[in-house]
Amino acid sequence: MILRDARATATLSIPEVLHLLEQEPYAYFEQLEAAFEEREASVQAFLPEDGRFARLRADYKALEARYPDRADRPPLFGLPVGVKDIFRADGFETHAGSRLPADRLAGQQAACVTHMVDAGALILGKTVTTEFAYFAPGPTRNPHNLSHTPGGSSSGSAAGVAAGLAPFAFGTQTVGSINRPAAFCGVVGFKPSYGRISTAGVIPLAPSLDHVGFFTTDVDGALTVAPHLLANWKPKDLDSRSQHLAPGTIGLGIPRGPYMEGASDETLAHFESVKIRLETGGLRVIDVPTMASYAEISEHHYLILAAEAAAVHKEWFDEYSELYNPKTAALIEKGRKISGDQLTSAREGRGQLREQLQALTEEYQIDAWISPAAPGPAPEGIESTGDPAMNLPWTYGGLPTIGLPSGWSADELPLGIQLTGTWYGDERLLAEAVAVERALTEE
Amino acid sequence: MILRDARATATLSIPEVLHLLEQEPYAYFEQLEAAFEEREASVQAFLPEDGRFARLRADYKALEARYPDRADRPPLFGLPVGVKDIFRADGFETHAGSRLPADRLAGQQAACVTHMVDAGALILGKTVTTEFAYFAPGPTRNPHNLSHTPGGSSSGSAAGVAAGLAPFAFGTQTVGSINRPAAFCGVVGFKPSYGRISTAGVIPLAPSLDHVGFFTTDVDGALTVAPHLLANWKPKDLDSRSQHLAPGTIGLGIPRGPYMEGASDETLAHFESVKIRLETGGLRVIDVPTMASYAEISEHHYLILAAEAAAVHKEWFDEYSELYNPKTAALIEKGRKISGDQLTSAREGRGQLREQLQALTEEYQIDAWISPAAPGPAPEGIESTGDPAMNLPWTYGGLPTIGLPSGWSADELPLGIQLTGTWYGDERLLAEAVAVERALTEE
Repeated sequence: MILRDARATATLSIPEVLHLLEQEPYAYFEQLEAAFEEREASVQAFLPEDGRFARLRADYKALEARYPDRADRPPLFGLPVGVKDIFRADGFETHAGSRLPADRLAGQQAACVTHMVDAGALILGKTVTTEFAYFAPGPTRNPHNLSHTPGGSSSGSAAGVAAGLAPFAFGTQTVGSINRPAAFCGVVGFKPSYGRISTAGVIPLAPSLDHVGFFTTDVDGALTVAPHLLANWKPKDLDSRSQHLAPGTIGLGIPRGPYMEGASDETLAHFESVKIRLETGGLRVIDVPTMASYAEISEHHYLILAAEAAAVHKEWFDEYSELYNPKTAALIEKGRKISGDQLTSAREGRGQLREQLQALTEEYQIDAWISPAAPGPAPEGIESTGDPAMNLPWTYGGLPTIGLPSGWSADELPLGIQLTGTWYGDERLLAEAVAVERALTEE
Repeated sequence: MILRDARATATLSIPEVLHLLEQEPYAYFEQLEAAFEEREASVQAFLPEDGRFARLRADYKALEARYPDRADRPPLFGLPVGVKDIFRADGFETHAGSRLPADRLAGQQAACVTHMVDAGALILGKTVTTEFAYFAPGPTRNPHNLSHTPGGSSSGSAAGVAAGLAPFAFGTQTVGSINRPAAFCGVVGFKPSYGRISTAGVIPLAPSLDHVGFFTTDVDGALTVAPHLLANWKPKDLDSRSQHLAPGTIGLGIPRGPYMEGASDETLAHFESVKIRLETGGLRVIDVPTMASYAEISEHHYLILAAEAAAVHKEWFDEYSELYNPKTAALIEKGRKISGDQLTSAREGRGQLREQLQALTEEYQIDAWISPAAPGPAPEGIESTGDPAMNLPWTYGGLPTIGLPSGWSADELPLGIQLTGTWYGDERLLAEAVAVERALTEE
């Protein structure tokens, strides 16, 4: 079965799920279990677990017992969440998509998982990741066409939300591991500013580039969980921006130059149609020439990635190099040869990029950047997770990005755009994403 | 000059500072500069910076220019903050109290520093830390008696706040590096639950034990900044607890057993007097036998610390072992010999301790634990930073602790108590700390 409409599949938004959970929790769990029975064997978004739903129901009962008074229930009471398998979670092994012994990867539960649990969420299971969140893929398939990749590295999280197996799933992005699979699978993927969600308890790939984020079915879902995950959450910024969201007040900049030229013709044609739809919806979308040095940005990013991955994996790789996938091994080997001087200039470029982009947003009076979230739709085959080139500079700069489904390719796979906000302007970005999502869905 | 009263020295609480900054920012900076001129040469809380206050005034002017409309100003507008020198901060080198080249320690600004800056704070400077936040001390002295240690590893942050050089300073605690120096220096030290403040951009000592926290002059100060730093901040928990804070409703448990026996006779006698003052103030303070296996807890903690420190320092130590202080080198050498099996059982103990303590809080109907924050007052000499034994089990369990000044030793040094809350119950703990602080200061 090819599912044509991500919205019909991944049906429910988080607020709707929370409402159902208040009314008929067991009916909702039954519905979710049915979705697993129908889809999971082919999509393979989750790591297998015997008796997953019996355990989930028991967890829910325990939660009910802990809050005998309904008025005391935390806000995400009973919400089942998928956890990418590079996050540690109590009661679950951590494999990180690798063949290393799980006890070598064990440790304290990830802080962000604890935040969700503390807010009332239940862990639905671990989702498939590429090996150590790099490029060597797991078994997950794109729910829209099983012969295509779901993208990576947060493969199972994106595919799981898209297939209606979870209303929320954690991901990480070090190059393009949230916004790319979100686009390939037709769901919303949010990567906040660098550092706004703690990476504690998440197996690192490259600590100074690793971002924790998540997948939801829509922006409303992202808005519901963000206050529980982002530190220094600024409700006033969200409210004041939301109150002034008359369409004409939003300016979006298209980052013209070598960066945009990396997208395929089909994607660029689709992107132009998105532009027209947004303008019809009253948004201002303008061209802004930028990132002339995109090639250098990309090179700097990979230098940091390789050097830091080599440092993170030093001991594991010394002991278990034969268990590593050749793609990951090559990254680590490359990283070992990078000098301190090379790294210093690679790192300095990040602050500079942020400053350049900030100056342009002021000069052109734009609120956010808009760009295709991937060079094209999900490629055929599951041996490669596709190209993160469209995501890389925003990750390098640590700026917040949110990806939204925007349409369909000729071969009926999802296409997506991404919005990039200002440094630590995550609340404003989410407010603007609401308006963009509305303009994209009102047709 | 020996300062007898920490409250008189470290005069202003954060809300008072913010009020002054609204009225007369430059008068406040002048006052702070005068405090530096009077005290910093002897206390040595900060890393030296030429023209610190000229730079600070320029930073303030830039901030003013960024927010021309006063109504838009973020809540901590202009607040000068001290940053322990294991946190990376843009514009400042990171030395981590070590002799390693600063460029080897460089990287992205710590997420928690960015949160404070995003909320309007200004960086006053880097504060002295022991080498890599372990035991080899820096030059800082206790402001209450310059021949005594301020404690460590967050030596400069605690001493700086105590000496009136900063209304806020960041610290970290891996064993007892916040609550111990807070007690020695007579200030408030707050170490939230493990993971509630991101450690991203902080040079790790032992990642699964490292906690970010901070020093303020009083609990009100801690309450003012906590929402900007702790993820998943729960204002409802704080409000509902604060509203029911009639003294009789608070139960505090004294963790009787081998743990408490580590405190000196003078400290235990003082602690009994604190108990009486709290009971007079209407709080219920009861004995709860616990942590019979304190020796094992301590052993497990040091296993994790040594093994993780060895892993963190692997490359640096391989290259620069001769630059390390012998105390730190010995820790790293020890850590290299610890087996994976030893570590696994050491790590499992943490969740077990949390569960045991949680069961006791329910059985005895207590809200928080109360204990001496250090075995005695700050020891003489600055070669040792004192004994973290009273802080260790709470750090091991990852539970939130807040230390409050509670009196004076025979030789006129501060004494302190610490309150320990439930896992992720940071908001409730802060509400309870308000009541305890009130009972301790109303005499």
